[in-house]
Amino acid sequence: MALNDSGGKEKTMKSITESPGLFEYDGGKEMLLRAKHDAELVQCILELATAKGIEAASFTAIGALKRARLGYYDQKNHKYKEIAIESPHEMVSCTGNVSLSDGKPFVHAHVVLADERGNTRAGHLMEGTVFAAEVHLRRLEGPRLQRKLDGVTGLWLWEI
Amino acid sequence: MALNDSGGKEKTMKSITESPGLFEYDGGKEMLLRAKHDAELVQCILELATAKGIEAASFTAIGALKRARLGYYDQKNHKYKEIAIESPHEMVSCTGNVSLSDGKPFVHAHVVLADERGNTRAGHLMEGTVFAAEVHLRRLEGPRLQRKLDGVTGLWLWEI
Amino acid sequence: MALNDSGGKEKTMKSITESPGLFEYDGGKEMLLRAKHDAELVQCILELATAKGIEAASFTAIGALKRARLGYYDQKNHKYKEIAIESPHEMVSCTGNVSLSDGKPFVHAHVVLADERGNTRAGHLMEGTVFAAEVHLRRLEGPRLQRKLDGVTGLWLWEI
Repeated sequence: MALNDSGGKEKTMKSITESPGLFEYDGGKEMLLRAKHDAELVQCILELATAKGIEAASFTAIGALKRARLGYYDQKNHKYKEIAIESPHEMVSCTGNVSLSDGKPFVHAHVVLADERGNTRAGHLMEGTVFAAEVHLRRLEGPRLQRKLDGVTGLWLWEI
Repeated sequence: MALNDSGGKEKTMKSITESPGLFEYDGGKEMLLRAKHDAELVQCILELATAKGIEAASFTAIGALKRARLGYYDQKNHKYKEIAIESPHEMVSCTGNVSLSDGKPFVHAHVVLADERGNTRAGHLMEGTVFAAEVHLRRLEGPRLQRKLDGVTGLWLWEI
Repeated sequence: MALNDSGGKEKTMKSITESPGLFEYDGGKEMLLRAKHDAELVQCILELATAKGIEAASFTAIGALKRARLGYYDQKNHKYKEIAIESPHEMVSCTGNVSLSDGKPFVHAHVVLADERGNTRAGHLMEGTVFAAEVHLRRLEGPRLQRKLDGVTGLWLWEI
């Protein structure tokens, strides 16, 4: 879960607040984002959250990716296996949330991809290179939601 | 993206406002729709948007389709390939949005279908014939979101 | 659709209101739930709805399941076929809603699962054993939404 490196945040924050691809609704609670061509999707959403000071959110996205790196979590051995998707796919489903890890916004997303025959590959979205993507993010106002290492699963889950 | 023909809109607007299958929540911001048996799903959502004057929205749906026509966008040659699904499938995921194209509501939806063994087919939803479908649409109030031809991808993306 | 047995509701209601895994946002309209390890996911969401008096809602979830039981509805013969998933899978998409059946909250959810190669299985979620799961539920305030047996499909659909 150290996938979302926050290096270069100042540059990022500047770019996202200037982004012409962000559309805000209902007083800023709801956002639609046209992700940039060739951007990395998880990073895109992380940059939006960072720039807007979002600490909790839920989102969905559709579009198409040029390539992606998916993850499958081995529930027994407590480590991710990576699945490389090297060809263009429709992004038929992307569902995720934003919470905090080490006090900074963290993006958790799962994705389903489809090829030219309609066959699918899916998993935890580690990285996805955007061909085109439309994100709907709903900001949530309330308690801080921190991720913490959970001993039972080996995952960074919401602290209880 | 001329899939949503608006011909016969007057008739449509009448039918949807009279529809007993539409349930409105939170002052009309949230809607649940029981799509009609044998209706075409994309058209259903378009009719709802048109009848209610919705210019921006995000939606999800689940249910089952009798048949469907999916699309895969060829990122190199800039055209859709069609995938015909001729048998009944569960609609295990449908995610999409409403924005404007040529000033009129336009529906963009992606779908994942599953057969009797749980195997999946997925893509851009061109057409789907409803066996049963439950749609949750959230209306977004804010800037007009217009689709415009994007030279890089060949797709009608949100104008920036 | 009698899958969500409400036996032991008192115990359940107590446990959910005491649950440290529930986080409420926007005045209680939006909820994030960290489902308990080894819990059954449909039951988890049902318990939340019951404890909070939720009669209509829409939700999504991501995470991982240890095992699951999926359903495919045979549109011709009007009965569910069950698909047993006996191995750990990522829960790459879960979309559903809460409405009323026999006056009590009822959960309807569809799910897409992925294995270690990124291959998918999907269907109506009858039961899923949680490895880890993050649920976002949006409560809807408005008309009562009752399920009733529909003669055309043989399904319990929203009453119109």
